[in-house]
Amino acid sequence: MLVNSFINQDIISVTQFDPAKLEYIFARAHEMRQMVEAQNGNDLLKGRVLACLFYEPSTRTSSSFIAAMERLGGSVIPITQGVQFSSVSKGETLADTVRTLEQYADVIVLRHPDVGSAHVAAEYAHVPIINAGDGAGEHPTQALLDLFTIWEELGTLEGLKVAMVGDLRNGRTVHSLTKLLMHYNVSLRFVSPEILRLPLTLMNEVIDHKIDVRETHDVADVIKNADVLYVTRVQKERFTDLAQYEEVKGHYEITPEIMSQAKQKMVVMHPLPRVGEIHYAVDNDPRAAYFRQVKNGMYIRMALLASVLGK
Amino acid sequence: MLVNSFINQDIISVTQFDPAKLEYIFARAHEMRQMVEAQNGNDLLKGRVLACLFYEPSTRTSSSFIAAMERLGGSVIPITQGVQFSSVSKGETLADTVRTLEQYADVIVLRHPDVGSAHVAAEYAHVPIINAGDGAGEHPTQALLDLFTIWEELGTLEGLKVAMVGDLRNGRTVHSLTKLLMHYNVSLRFVSPEILRLPLTLMNEVIDHKIDVRETHDVADVIKNADVLYVTRVQKERFTDLAQYEEVKGHYEITPEIMSQAKQKMVVMHPLPRVGEIHYAVDNDPRAAYFRQVKNGMYIRMALLASVLGK
Amino acid sequence: MLVNSFINQDIISVTQFDPAKLEYIFARAHEMRQMVEAQNGNDLLKGRVLACLFYEPSTRTSSSFIAAMERLGGSVIPITQGVQFSSVSKGETLADTVRTLEQYADVIVLRHPDVGSAHVAAEYAHVPIINAGDGAGEHPTQALLDLFTIWEELGTLEGLKVAMVGDLRNGRTVHSLTKLLMHYNVSLRFVSPEILRLPLTLMNEVIDHKIDVRETHDVADVIKNADVLYVTRVQKERFTDLAQYEEVKGHYEITPEIMSQAKQKMVVMHPLPRVGEIHYAVDNDPRAAYFRQVKNGMYIRMALLASVLGK
Repeated sequence: MLVNSFINQDIISVTQFDPAKLEYIFARAHEMRQMVEAQNGNDLLKGRVLACLFYEPSTRTSSSFIAAMERLGGSVIPITQGVQFSSVSKGETLADTVRTLEQYADVIVLRHPDVGSAHVAAEYAHVPIINAGDGAGEHPTQALLDLFTIWEELGTLEGLKVAMVGDLRNGRTVHSLTKLLMHYNVSLRFVSPEILRLPLTLMNEVIDHKIDVRETHDVADVIKNADVLYVTRVQKERFTDLAQYEEVKGHYEITPEIMSQAKQKMVVMHPLPRVGEIHYAVDNDPRAAYFRQVKNGMYIRMALLASVLGK
Repeated sequence: MLVNSFINQDIISVTQFDPAKLEYIFARAHEMRQMVEAQNGNDLLKGRVLACLFYEPSTRTSSSFIAAMERLGGSVIPITQGVQFSSVSKGETLADTVRTLEQYADVIVLRHPDVGSAHVAAEYAHVPIINAGDGAGEHPTQALLDLFTIWEELGTLEGLKVAMVGDLRNGRTVHSLTKLLMHYNVSLRFVSPEILRLPLTLMNEVIDHKIDVRETHDVADVIKNADVLYVTRVQKERFTDLAQYEEVKGHYEITPEIMSQAKQKMVVMHPLPRVGEIHYAVDNDPRAAYFRQVKNGMYIRMALLASVLGK
Repeated sequence: MLVNSFINQDIISVTQFDPAKLEYIFARAHEMRQMVEAQNGNDLLKGRVLACLFYEPSTRTSSSFIAAMERLGGSVIPITQGVQFSSVSKGETLADTVRTLEQYADVIVLRHPDVGSAHVAAEYAHVPIINAGDGAGEHPTQALLDLFTIWEELGTLEGLKVAMVGDLRNGRTVHSLTKLLMHYNVSLRFVSPEILRLPLTLMNEVIDHKIDVRETHDVADVIKNADVLYVTRVQKERFTDLAQYEEVKGHYEITPEIMSQAKQKMVVMHPLPRVGEIHYAVDNDPRAAYFRQVKNGMYIRMALLASVLGK
């Protein structure tokens, strides 16, 4: 039987999640999907209040949490225009801001530009803190929705060949998803330009887990066998030599031609927003899962909100 | 019997509305008014989520849609501070933004500075899009609330003498209301400075409909016979010759003196905000309908939201 | 029996409140606390809509009102990013803005930088206006929550020794709380630097009420006997002579050492945000009531919203 071990817990990092906890959250997220498809929403969190405290705006993430709370019958205090947060401009500390908001709200979702800020907030708050991104640090609900999408699309997390494509050096979502995938029996393929390869500490961690892993410079090398293609953007700004960028960029674009070489059951994912790295012509391909992935984000957040609030 | 032909439809343009559809929406808006007056709100759209996606702020319009959704028991994702919309600054297209938000929401209200943007959004979205203004393009819910106000105030749309006053050249609301009025047996009087006359294409359209129509330069010419006085602002900035502005502006101000010449059942309307074109002394005149017009906006939006969501 | 005399009334100033009215609101706020502690929220204001109209951002205050309305089952139109309020930039008057919003909402909470603006709004609006701060004017719900906190913490308002500390010259909260305390049999101690003493008009009013009152320059002078220590910030910017600031500032800091001299049942309050005037080491002292004070703000606003809406 699945047990909710999240009651009154903070959600700060992917390192909190082992397979049992992942299974619990995914089962609940799947239930949320069935509930929304059947009846749009319910009253599970009626009377409960979520404070969305975004020190920097992130429309996608805040909208997802707001919809998640609302579909469970709860209410939201939307503080989503970070720059305007007035008490901060008066010099209030994050600790005091969080201890103030917890007087009004039952749970706080925090987005903050500084690494470690979610941890600080959790230390001071008595209500659960959910980390919605702390700068270059973590964004655990994104990693959970990514893994959940693979689970929903392919029915398992075992035995899969997952290819990560693009900027693997700076991509926070790639790093977090990789950490979660190491709990399972998977093969990993990392596809990036030389200067954007996976950080070596993380690569070593993968190797230590005895995971079947390879690095390459071209999507074409992995497309035939991949079960999952997780695409991120190769940003021009990362290159000091623009000629080099122009030379390599075509190796990371997902086009109908590339898709024609892939398995019929392969899944294309992207954390969005995209700026050209997946051609629009791919959108109607049934394997294009990136908008379903967005929806899974709402289900995961519904599952987390319900779980930390003990419902 | 009235039939809801709006289920899952987009609301993009006034050209979608024929008299049967107008009658349906007005009957529903009237029901909404009765419901709100009797019980403040109901649960018709409980569990449903509206995304208010405003690329430019419009407090009046967004507040009206938010209240409309909330009074029907639904919830709102308020993205009403356009300039801060974060994914846009990362280069996301409108098509992707809309396809993202539809994962969270059951209906999207869009305000965007570019003509045609609502049409583009509707092409990509699977949920209904309601156009809340696309730049110099359309703002159909405003036109509907204007026409509904005449219907509510005077009990009919047939046989009326409607005078439009002010900037008829640039006034989007004047153009849209004129198009809707052409479905009915009305007389139209256009009152404006020479440089702000109704565009000739629209004037020709009115003439083609064999509508009794006249143009004039002074409200005093139409005040005695008008059933409806639809007032808009004559902006100083439109005049290159300010002496000309000073000379004519008095011909377009609605004062208690002007009102004393009007019919006892005449209706004064204004899309608001006003800046002096209707004197405050007129506000207590029972014929001043402009704040009731604002309220009708909420009822029309309640009717549209319920209709496109199939309730 | 307690009677609700607030139905359809505006809440503009602390001068509206006599002991009977205070008792009514405090009794209701206490009920709200019991309800929230037992069941998080209820449906008392279901179907009702609150417009939060903030011409300047105040996250703490707007969040408190939003949570208050939501915990009573009501809905909110959140216009909390003052600078962006679009109709204002088009030249709309406050009177017209308020008369527009009352078409959508059943009650309006107004924050505005100009003294007297809440009074103007109330004059024009037909729905209740609650003043959430009008510049250097009043912020009555803050004064109510301050007084309510003393009542909740100490069980009475009679016979108490209340010390006010910090910037007593400019502190709006100090002035309002002082006015309310004059209804009761209290002793007042005013502790401030010379240049930040209580304004003489208010001091004379206190004396006229024959209240036991003293002024001093050092918290140490009052700490032993105080039942309530109401702390506000001494801002560096108020001093033309910074050496003077450095010399006196230590006399107004609340430290564990100072606390060790206080009564065991003393209560430390602060309107927040604080910037150093209460040491973090004091936070865990059971006498530190400033975060409970924040929560009482939500209960007071719940009581006011329910009362003006006749529930």
